This record gives sequence, C-alpha cells and structure tokens, in this order.
Amino acid sequence: MPLSVAVSGASGYAGGEILRLLAAHPEVEIRTVTAHSNAGQPLIDHQPHLRSLRHLTLQPSTPEVLAGHDIVFLALPHGQSGQYTEALADTALVIDAGADHRLTSSDDWDAFYGGAFHEPWAYGVPELLIGSDGAKQREKLVGASRIAAPGCNASTVALSLAPGVAAGVIDPADIVTVLAVGPSGAGKSLKTNLLAAEILGSANPYAIGGTHRHIPEIRQALRGAGASGDIRISFTPVLVPMSRGILATSTAPIAPGVTDAQIRDAWRNAYADETFVQLLPEGSFPRTADVVGANTALMGLAIDRAAGRVVVVTAVDNLAKGTAGAAIQSMNIALGFAETTGLSVNGVAP
Amino acid sequence: MPLSVAVSGASGYAGGEILRLLAAHPEVEIRTVTAHSNAGQPLIDHQPHLRSLRHLTLQPSTPEVLAGHDIVFLALPHGQSGQYTEALADTALVIDAGADHRLTSSDDWDAFYGGAFHEPWAYGVPELLIGSDGAKQREKLVGASRIAAPGCNASTVALSLAPGVAAGVIDPADIVTVLAVGPSGAGKSLKTNLLAAEILGSANPYAIGGTHRHIPEIRQALRGAGASGDIRISFTPVLVPMSRGILATSTAPIAPGVTDAQIRDAWRNAYADETFVQLLPEGSFPRTADVVGANTALMGLAIDRAAGRVVVVTAVDNLAKGTAGAAIQSMNIALGFAETTGLSVNGVAP
Amino acid sequence: MPLSVAVSGASGYAGGEILRLLAAHPEVEIRTVTAHSNAGQPLIDHQPHLRSLRHLTLQPSTPEVLAGHDIVFLALPHGQSGQYTEALADTALVIDAGADHRLTSSDDWDAFYGGAFHEPWAYGVPELLIGSDGAKQREKLVGASRIAAPGCNASTVALSLAPGVAAGVIDPADIVTVLAVGPSGAGKSLKTNLLAAEILGSANPYAIGGTHRHIPEIRQALRGAGASGDIRISFTPVLVPMSRGILATSTAPIAPGVTDAQIRDAWRNAYADETFVQLLPEGSFPRTADVVGANTALMGLAIDRAAGRVVVVTAVDNLAKGTAGAAIQSMNIALGFAETTGLSVNGVAP
Amino acid sequence: MPLSVAVSGASGYAGGEILRLLAAHPEVEIRTVTAHSNAGQPLIDHQPHLRSLRHLTLQPSTPEVLAGHDIVFLALPHGQSGQYTEALADTALVIDAGADHRLTSSDDWDAFYGGAFHEPWAYGVPELLIGSDGAKQREKLVGASRIAAPGCNASTVALSLAPGVAAGVIDPADIVTVLAVGPSGAGKSLKTNLLAAEILGSANPYAIGGTHRHIPEIRQALRGAGASGDIRISFTPVLVPMSRGILATSTAPIAPGVTDAQIRDAWRNAYADETFVQLLPEGSFPRTADVVGANTALMGLAIDRAAGRVVVVTAVDNLAKGTAGAAIQSMNIALGFAETTGLSVNGVAP
Repeated sequence: MPLSVAVSGASGYAGGEILRLLAAHPEVEIRTVTAHSNAGQPLIDHQPHLRSLRHLTLQPSTPEVLAGHDIVFLALPHGQSGQYTEALADTALVIDAGADHRLTSSDDWDAFYGGAFHEPWAYGVPELLIGSDGAKQREKLVGASRIAAPGCNASTVALSLAPGVAAGVIDPADIVTVLAVGPSGAGKSLKTNLLAAEILGSANPYAIGGTHRHIPEIRQALRGAGASGDIRISFTPVLVPMSRGILATSTAPIAPGVTDAQIRDAWRNAYADETFVQLLPEGSFPRTADVVGANTALMGLAIDRAAGRVVVVTAVDNLAKGTAGAAIQSMNIALGFAETTGLSVNGVAP
Repeated sequence: MPLSVAVSGASGYAGGEILRLLAAHPEVEIRTVTAHSNAGQPLIDHQPHLRSLRHLTLQPSTPEVLAGHDIVFLALPHGQSGQYTEALADTALVIDAGADHRLTSSDDWDAFYGGAFHEPWAYGVPELLIGSDGAKQREKLVGASRIAAPGCNASTVALSLAPGVAAGVIDPADIVTVLAVGPSGAGKSLKTNLLAAEILGSANPYAIGGTHRHIPEIRQALRGAGASGDIRISFTPVLVPMSRGILATSTAPIAPGVTDAQIRDAWRNAYADETFVQLLPEGSFPRTADVVGANTALMGLAIDRAAGRVVVVTAVDNLAKGTAGAAIQSMNIALGFAETTGLSVNGVAP
Repeated sequence: MPLSVAVSGASGYAGGEILRLLAAHPEVEIRTVTAHSNAGQPLIDHQPHLRSLRHLTLQPSTPEVLAGHDIVFLALPHGQSGQYTEALADTALVIDAGADHRLTSSDDWDAFYGGAFHEPWAYGVPELLIGSDGAKQREKLVGASRIAAPGCNASTVALSLAPGVAAGVIDPADIVTVLAVGPSGAGKSLKTNLLAAEILGSANPYAIGGTHRHIPEIRQALRGAGASGDIRISFTPVLVPMSRGILATSTAPIAPGVTDAQIRDAWRNAYADETFVQLLPEGSFPRTADVVGANTALMGLAIDRAAGRVVVVTAVDNLAKGTAGAAIQSMNIALGFAETTGLSVNGVAP
Repeated sequence: MPLSVAVSGASGYAGGEILRLLAAHPEVEIRTVTAHSNAGQPLIDHQPHLRSLRHLTLQPSTPEVLAGHDIVFLALPHGQSGQYTEALADTALVIDAGADHRLTSSDDWDAFYGGAFHEPWAYGVPELLIGSDGAKQREKLVGASRIAAPGCNASTVALSLAPGVAAGVIDPADIVTVLAVGPSGAGKSLKTNLLAAEILGSANPYAIGGTHRHIPEIRQALRGAGASGDIRISFTPVLVPMSRGILATSTAPIAPGVTDAQIRDAWRNAYADETFVQLLPEGSFPRTADVVGANTALMGLAIDRAAGRVVVVTAVDNLAKGTAGAAIQSMNIALGFAETTGLSVNGVAP
C-alpha cells in the first residue's frame, strides 16, 4: 500500500515540482495539498501542468490538515515550519524544502535570516562528501525522520567544490562563484523585478557582495567536507531569461604542489559511482537545458594554470535536483526505497 | 558635406550595428556596404531592421571597392584585415572591428590567435585609464587614423577593473570574471550550438579554463592602466538566452590596508566625468536590458569584506558599446566631432 | 526655445517609452514626470535605462502638477483622464496614451470598458485610411490639441486591413486576427500570469472569444476606412516570451471577383508614400525584432486563393509605433514639426 | 524480455525525443541508434541530456544496421524512408516520424512535397475522430505494423477541429489557424533564420499563404472526421522564442442553427474519455508550458457569437505529443501495451 503524503505550499513553484515528482512515484499517494491564500481552490488552477492531480483541492495549511500522513513536505517561506513541529510529532517523515532546518549555527541564522533558530535536520544532499575518507551525506539520511532539503544554489556550489576541498587540492579561502539562475528560484512572488518584461532579454544580478542567504549554507557544507581554516566565498547570482536552471561557475585557487591528475582524480573519485552527479569528460561542460526536469547535476572541470585556479561549471535544475528532486531522493533513502525511484537522470531538451 | 563611409562585413551582426549607428550619425554618409558570400544581394535582405538603408546593395569586399572613402570600417573575421592595408593607405580613417590590430604582443597573438601578426592600432576604448594619473585612452584617439575597436568582453572587463588597478586598491594577480553574454556576440555563424533551440531556456558555458581570446586583451589593458606584477584572470563566458548584452561579474582581491572609501573613490573618480561609463550609486547594480542599443556601460560596485574581494558588475550591449558604439565613439574623437554624436546614452527597455 | 512637457504615468512601460523618445526629440524639454504610488522617488529607480533623465524626480500625478506645460502626456489606466480635463484646459496639447478618448460610441465603451464615457479625441494613427479616396487620419491631427494615442493591438490590425477595406477587396464581415504579443503590453502589473517564470518558454493566450477591449477600436477604424455592412472580428492575443512586439496575423475573405493585382495595389498604394508603414516586397514577411525601438510598422501580404483569404502579417513595437511612437508622431503633426522628428525608422536588431 | 528497438536520425531533435521517451519505457530496450553525418560518434555528444544512454554510439543509417530489431523508428527527412522498406520487411513494427507515409493522396504529395509517393501507413493520432459515430483512429492502430507519426502542427489542428467537424457544428470551408511554434520543430538545421540571435526577442512568421506542408494533412484528417464539401484552411505558423511547443489558435464558422450547448458537447464528448487530449473547463485556455515534455494536448474552446466563430486554442509539445509521444503512444496501441506506458500526462512547468 502506498504511503500517504501531504504537501504544503502546493500552489508555489517548489510545491508544484514536489507534486510533479511525487505523482510519478510508485510508492506514495498524494492525499493532501495545502496552501495559504489559495486554500479552497482547485490545485489545477495553480498548477495547470499537473493534469493527473486535477481532482485535488487546496486545503488550508494548518497543522491539523497536515497531520495524519506518513510523509509531509513543507514548502513554505522560512520561519514558518516551527508552527507544525508539534502537530507533526508522529509523522514518520517530514521534509522541509524551506531554510528553517538547514543551518547548524545559530549565528549564521541570525546573520542571514533572523527570527527563531530551529534545530538542524539531516541535510538532503546525498552525494555531498562529509570528510576526506569518501563518506557522504547519504549515510545520515538512511532512516532519517526529519530532512532539510537544500538551498538550490547552495547545494550546487557545495557539490561543485566539495571534492576539491575533501581532497585538499583547492584552497577554500578564496572561492568565487557566479551563478546564472532562472527566476523560478525566486518563487511565485509578485515583485516588479520578476515580471517577464523585466527578465526577458536581460541579465539581472542580485544579492551582490556577500548578502545571499545561501552563503553560510555553502560554508557549512564545505566545512563538513573537510575544509580547515578560512572558508571565504564571493557569491553572485544573476537572473537570466530561462524559467529553470542554475549554471554555477565556481573557482578556487589550486593548492600548492598539486598535480592536474590529483585534481581530476578528486572529482572523478567523488562522483564515479553516483547516478545523479556526473562529471563530464575533460573538455566537456554542461548546459542547464540538459538537466531540465532531471535530478541530475552535470559538472565540468577545468584546470586553469595561468590563472592558478580550478574552474567547476555545474548545471542543475533548481526546482528538481536543486529542491524537489533532492527532497524525493532523500525521501527514498530515508524510507529504504531504491534511491532513483521516481526520478529521472535524463533532462527534457531542447 | 558629410564624410563618405564604407562598411565591410555589412551582412553580419557587428556590421549591422555599425550601420545602424552610422545611419543616425549626422556627419557621415554610408556610401558602400560590402560582404563576402552575400555580395550582389540587397543589404535589406540581411539587415531587415535597417529600413533607411534599403537602397543599398552589398558589394564584394575587395580592396578596390573599399578604397576611395573617407572612412572605412572593417567588420571581418580576424586575420583578414591585412589584405586591405595597402589599398587603404590613403584612407583618412580605418576602424577595424576585428581583432587584428588590438594586441601589442606578438606572443599573445601567437598564443591565442595565430597567423600573421599585425601592428597594433589605437585601442578604441576612450574611457580606459592608462596609468594612475587619470590619463585615458581617449588622448590616443584624438587625430588617430587607424583604430582597433575592442573585443566586447575584453573592454567590459577592462573598464570594470581598470580604476581599481590604477588606484592600487585591488590585486590584479587573482582576477575572476564570469560573463553572461548574448549569442549575437558569436556572430551570424551557422553552428549547432548557436541554434535557437539550443540557447532558449539554457545557460551554456564556453571557452572555459583560460582559452578565450579576450584574456590577453584584458591583461594588456590592465597593464596599461598601471598594473605591476602578475595579472592573472580566470575568465568564463556563459551564453544566455538574450540576443544582446554582456553582464560581467568581475572580482579581485582587495589590496592590503585599503579602506572602503578609497575603493569607492577609485571608481567614482575614474568615471565621474564620463557620459558613457556610469557608476551606479552604492547598492545599485545594472541589468543588460538598460543598455540595449545604448553606448553605455553601467557599473555597480560592491565591497565584500567577508570574501576579501571587490565585486564589479558591468552591463554593456555587446554590439553597441562593446563593438560598434565604441567604434563610432572613437571615430568621433579621431575626427574631432562631439564625442556623443550619433550615440545614445539611453537604452531600449523593457 | 523647446516646448515644456509633462508626462504622467512615468514609472510605467508606456510612460517610459514616451520619455525615451522625448529625450531624443530636439523640440521639447521634459520638465515634469509624475506617478501615483511612486511619487517622490527618483525616476531612474523605475526607468533605469533612461540615463539622460536621472536628474528627474517623480511628482504626484495631480492636475496642479501637470498644468502649466505646453504639452502633457497621460499614460494612465483607463477611466483616470477625466480628472485632469479641467485643469489642463489651457494646455496647448494633451495626448492620452490610455483608452478614455479613443471610442466614438458610448455603447462600445459601456460594453468593453464601463464607467463614465469621455468624448473622443483625434485618433493618433496618422497613416490610417479614412475612406476610399486615400484620405488619412493625418489630416485630422494637423493642429489638433487633444489626441488619443491608439491601442497597440488595435492600430496594428487596423493598419493591416484598412487598405483592403478601403479598396473593397476584402470582406470585413469575417476577419480573423491572431497576435503574438510581448508582455510589456500588459503594463508593469503585479499579476502572477505576467511573472517571468510563467512567460518564459511558453505561449499564453488571453482575452479569447471576443472579449478584448481593442475589438471595438478596430471596428471603428475599419468603419472609418469605408467598411459598409457588418464588421466581425475574431481576435486572439497570445503572450509570447519577448519583452516587446506585436506580430499580428490578420486574414479576411477576398471579395468576389477581385484580382491579385487589385489586392496588391490596395496595400501598395495605401502606404507607398509612408515612412513608418512599409509594405514588404511580395514573398517577404516581417519579424518583430526588426522594429524594436522603431516607429515602424512592417507589413507582408499574402493572397491565399486556396483558402480564399488575404493574409496580412504586421510587425510593430507595441511600446513604440504601437503607443509612444504613435503619440510622438501625432504630436509632431499636431504642432507642425517634421513628422519624423525624434523617431527612428530602423529597429534595434538582433 | 523487452523488445529491441533501433532509432534512426538519433542525433536530431525528433530522434532525441523518441529516445528520451523510450529510455523511460519498461517494455523496450534501445539497442541501436543511427545517424548520417554523425555516425561513429557517441550519442551523448549530440544528445547531452540523455545521460542514461551515454553508452551508445551512433551507427550509420543503413538498412543493414536497422534490420533485425523488433521495432524501428525512422526520424529522417522526408523522401528517405523508401530505401529501408525492403530491408525492414521482417521488422514487426516500423514507425516513421517523417512525412513519407502520412498522405493518402498522391496529388497532395506532389503538390506539397514532390518525389516518389509512398503508400500511406496507419496515421498515429489515436484520438482523432474518424467519422461522426465516435470512432477513432485508435482502432486502426491496434495491431498495426507500419505507422506514420503525424506532423506536429497538423495533428494539433486536426485534434482541435475534428470534434466540431464530426458533429457538424462548424463549417470547415473557412478554417483559419495561426500557430505559435518553437524552433525545435524546424529540426537541428543550420539555417540563419534559426540562429538564437534571430529568434530571441522576436516573433517570426514563415510558410505564409498556403504553402505549409501540413495543410493537406489537416484537410485529410478533417475529411476523415466526416467533413463534406470544401475544406479550406488559412494556415500561418509563427516562430516564437520558446524551444518547444505549439499553441494553435484555430477558428471556424459556427454552422447555422447550432446552439452553444451543441458546440460544447461536440468537444466534450469527443475527448471525455481520453487521457492525453483534455478539454479545459469553459473559460480556461492552455499554455504551452503546461505540456512541456508531456504527451498531452490541452484544449480550450470559446464560442464567439459576435464573430460567428468557434475558437479552439490547443497547446502541445511539438516534440512530445506532436511527434515522439504520438509515436510511442501509437506503438503502445499497436503492440498491445497499456496506451499510457512510458508517457506522462503532466508537463514540466514552470
């Protein structure tokens, strides 16, 4: 019998992608969808692409409505998950697609978010290295009952650089990363700068100069991967005219005395056995189109000796592998399903 | 009486933009347009937006056809300008929009282009600092008879960082720049990766890891601006789905002991009197949409002390300020016209 | 001495385009810009592409602020112009970019807009035929003091079909028009369906089945061009992912007994002497890219005998020739300036 | 044991989508992929989104290579399928995604394609009505061994209007259809007008005035659905800046004396039991984003009494339901698999 699932924030972009993936997942049944201001309306009015779910009506996002399911996904603005904690105490698995349970440091939380600090949950990036011995975050997800899905930009950059950090072949004290990102990552928010006429034909930077909330999450992940000493990150996201996708160009100084072979081995070894994080052959680099709808992070690696830097370019679908796919993959691990269940390694292109 | 002009490569994107700007320029008359494979065809078949020039027919790009004008623009693939040198010996002003006359070092030419090295011409970036005393490239363009229009990415990055280099407030030994660029910069080339279906909905990196031909041009410009010691640049361009535009995110380490005020002053002073290079107020950053069709470089500056880096985000229309606008502006200076003649500071947005 | 101008609705898209064109117009000086909710803020915060106007601050849109200028442009939601009528009684020229003064029939107004009916003003489409003798709307604009700029879709379709109607070579009783339109035509409105993530990669129809407000305006224009009997229009706009532009595909049955030559002559004669409405050669059809930023309507004509229909494809920049350009062109005529002053026939492409 | 499949034209867009869908199909195994000029290269170089197929190498598209499989898909330019007929005589199922076997009339073939006429195969649009008694094309696909996948535009328009034709509530003698289409429908062809810089920010019409090759295919389908008398179609496709998708706006005159209820019933009854063709509720209309990657045609119906026309707006993914999805769905029917096997009703949006 399939497990029952409730999804809050079901009228938004992250909630929609969670539903799209769950709808194709053989082990679960979407029983309840909830929203705030849109409660009472048919789901299909807000997610017109989810034709198989057109029988569902949005319920209010109350603890009572969400309780009583085997699995609950929270896709809410940060700061809102706390109100559900008690009511969901008996829920076998809760996955938060928001930021509330990602950070382990309350100082980071205060500096970048503010408001009540929540305890960290198991971080939903299974392929992330946790130390230099090849151990990965996957281990911590087995049997987990509370999972924090990652920030899409954060997990993309963390996966890009963790192999080099864990192997000691790059210096995390001077990371620079610039990300081309699609506006769906900003959510279904009524803001002038997210209007189509503003985005079409334009590249629009935001959160420049160290203010983006995913910065402490990257630092935390790289610390977990074995970075010692300072971790410093110059992080600049740029909205570009594609609905989905992140293309992260991340660079870090090559550590002294390291050979090209050592560098390539670090990444190759880290992901050789992974289905959803794939290192492309030398000289190949990924495009975001190739991962649209897929749970795949594609990665290309260049060693620029003239600049003294490793350059890692990673393409991810911000809503899929960046958010909802990571959540479902983590769910699969937590509940003992095959890790790839309901997830596609192939993108929808062109 | 207006000066007579000939434009070669008139069926391409750079040639088309040169013509668009010249058509609105009161001091010149477009007399001749040339092309290679399209010679004999109406210009309007290849530049259907240039309605005011629909009387023109593409002539063959021979030295004979180009000779006898007051001004000649060459918008040709690199390596092709040499064949015109002798025939145009008597031409008062020749402006090459290609790469042949940009580099002063034959070693750089050999390493990044190859083939016969051509003598450097006056570099067509008037606002570029040439030393720490505030002198600018404009001086060298006054009265020039041979001008090399810049590479669009190169001039964008050079303008972004020259103020900090000239003032000694950043360290050019570890520059990282990532550029979101529109595909018109790649020219009207029949390549699979430039097809609309490949670019739409996708961010596509290319020339990763130190291979892009604009790298030596940036180094040369920053050397000219007063950089001493190593200049090292990690340079990554990313094609994004906008027809025009460059958004360059360029970062460099803050030099030791430098204050925020010193940093801001460096950029403010450099461009305070410029019409076409404008530093936005603190906290503001530009979008490429705001410079479409304009000869304007808009620049935003952030000081990221946590990362130890200055971040400069600059938006440019690759075809306008990046290429054709720079060429016309340089022409204005060379010939003693008002520098802004025929050029717009306002973009076409949204 | 230049004439003084005030522009209301200056923070929106139509207002921004009026300002962009006025900023390049030698006969006027932009003295005042007004807005509702954004009053008190710098114009440049809302129109960051209008670099030459960065000294201007948005004033409140009150009658008092707008009074006292030689020319006033109203770029307001419909129903709001009435409040200014009295205060602007002494203004030499008022141009309304909104709908309030376009319709001559109060029944049409009631059916498609509602609220108080306003008297019709001179309709700002100079090239529109008004009868079968070649007379054009231009005549009515000479010396006009009150001008209604057209609806962008309406004027595009009216210009497309008026020649055939005036010449009696098509039957206006069964017009079908489908328009690909950019989202800037919908204004800077915070609506979910206008978010970039909704528009990117998608074609989105709206106002289907006879509800669009431009339908009565087209009927009125074609009636003016000499249509007798019924005028029936199936009108479907489709939002597509381009910031600007209208591509209208308009078809009507070929009138009985009419030859191909008669059809082609109708359109050729209508626009042979026009600068801003151009019929392309047989077999050529326009693209919206070719008119971006231009005051040009490009038109292609096909005669489909198998279908029994004339097909007219017209490309217009909705903000330029569709709205602001039409307003400036009409201003030029009204005030006796050369009709093309400050307007470009060339588009910004690619 | 899964059935063995070969796909020719595997480096193109149609071939790529066939492979994407087959890769997720539980009953088949992709054994062979072939191409012409790219033979010998890894498939992944040409289809970088098909990560699960990166072990495959493109073979030459010879009859010998394609023979010996249970199922063969031909995704070739028209006119090329004939050379395989004999070699594939023993192949249980051959599906041609090209045009060679769609038309039943050699006159139509001569007029719109030319070259040798091939016998018509079972037409791969299962939901298409074939007569007024509710019978559908599906019946003819059961057990079929040779199937012609439809033209994407043709099947979209045919599905849009067949219900009205079959029920006699619209008049097929004056159909007008205008389609917004993504450039992937034009294939991976190196043509200037398909370059990204030409398509971005622009709406580009083509094949105007009755020349498009899908016109006879629509006429044939509507004739099959029961149309008597003339079938006349004004057909205009417009390339818009989205990689995939067709939004077809199709109108036809309302037949005399027909009520709104009769009209709505015609469409409702036709598709009430269909999974992949869905009529939206009254007042709702589809967007192409909602069917990206899906095998779904979404349809909205308006009755415009003022214009005297029914308006049907249908959204389809040209590569999925328009081509490859139709092929797989037809394969499922032909071979007795559940019709929905390997196909998604949900799109990937936003």
